[in-house]
Amino acid sequence: MRKVILGLAVSLDGFIEGPNGEYDWCFTDQDYGMSDFFKRIDSIFIGRKSYELALTMGDAAMPGFPRLTEYVFSNTLMEVKPGAILVNGDIEQKVKRIKSEPGKDIWLFGGADLTASLLNLNLIDEIGMAVHPVILGGGKSLFQDISKRIELKLVDTKSYSTGLVSLTYHLKQAV
Amino acid sequence: MRKVILGLAVSLDGFIEGPNGEYDWCFTDQDYGMSDFFKRIDSIFIGRKSYELALTMGDAAMPGFPRLTEYVFSNTLMEVKPGAILVNGDIEQKVKRIKSEPGKDIWLFGGADLTASLLNLNLIDEIGMAVHPVILGGGKSLFQDISKRIELKLVDTKSYSTGLVSLTYHLKQAV
Repeated sequence: MRKVILGLAVSLDGFIEGPNGEYDWCFTDQDYGMSDFFKRIDSIFIGRKSYELALTMGDAAMPGFPRLTEYVFSNTLMEVKPGAILVNGDIEQKVKRIKSEPGKDIWLFGGADLTASLLNLNLIDEIGMAVHPVILGGGKSLFQDISKRIELKLVDTKSYSTGLVSLTYHLKQAV
Repeated sequence: MRKVILGLAVSLDGFIEGPNGEYDWCFTDQDYGMSDFFKRIDSIFIGRKSYELALTMGDAAMPGFPRLTEYVFSNTLMEVKPGAILVNGDIEQKVKRIKSEPGKDIWLFGGADLTASLLNLNLIDEIGMAVHPVILGGGKSLFQDISKRIELKLVDTKSYSTGLVSLTYHLKQAV
């Protein structure tokens, strides 16, 4: 069964963007395990807002990204760009079907709405957080509208000389 | 110079209490470095709301706590319990004076308002977070109303078999 992995950079106060949408606090000086991570995945799950934002930035927004199949979650979009796959309607059923298809793991790339939906449906298998040594004081929170307590199992920690700490959890109740 | 240490248990989503004020997710099965921490300190800083909450719970709320000098921060209280010290007015000047007095380090015990005030005034020297392997989905956030970006220096990480990860940071700009 393919795993759905929520993987993101966060500040110590839990923001994935600064108050003005900044990402400048995210370290780019090292690989931080990303090469290994990219070997594990062949697809991404992305919400409509993040998808549309990425479209406006063009491919240049993600230099070095491998070719990934994009699953775009939206109940309002009628079509998505060539090669991408639109997911709407019964998310639970559709995600379970995608997870049961042959393939590598799937990177849940955001945003907050999709993350909350999938967490609340027990469809996320792993959470990887790159905790950066900074307090942003505001911005967009990684976790919003989670409707219940979710127990996690810590499976790995790694700290880097820059102060980044990588935390990996499995979700106990994931199907 | 005495250090002011913000030390707290948090959920992975950054809450220090659950949606209904719960603390039942906080591990109590091991020491988690608390004995060593208590050897470093002889005082606590506490905000009015936390102080009043602790008063209602009585001493039973903190079994095993060493005898600490309590500095209660409030501009509305006129007096505090015997042995405690009321701090009001010019917080910056008063905290700097307390830090320059002889003594051990000081535990900033909360709450969110006092934490934000002291962070914004660059008066916190160290942050120790015991990150618990749980997503609470709501509650009281550790960091609120921080007015600026604060760079941190990671100085220690420790992970425990229960999944608790202890992260220790120094504040780069602390005086």
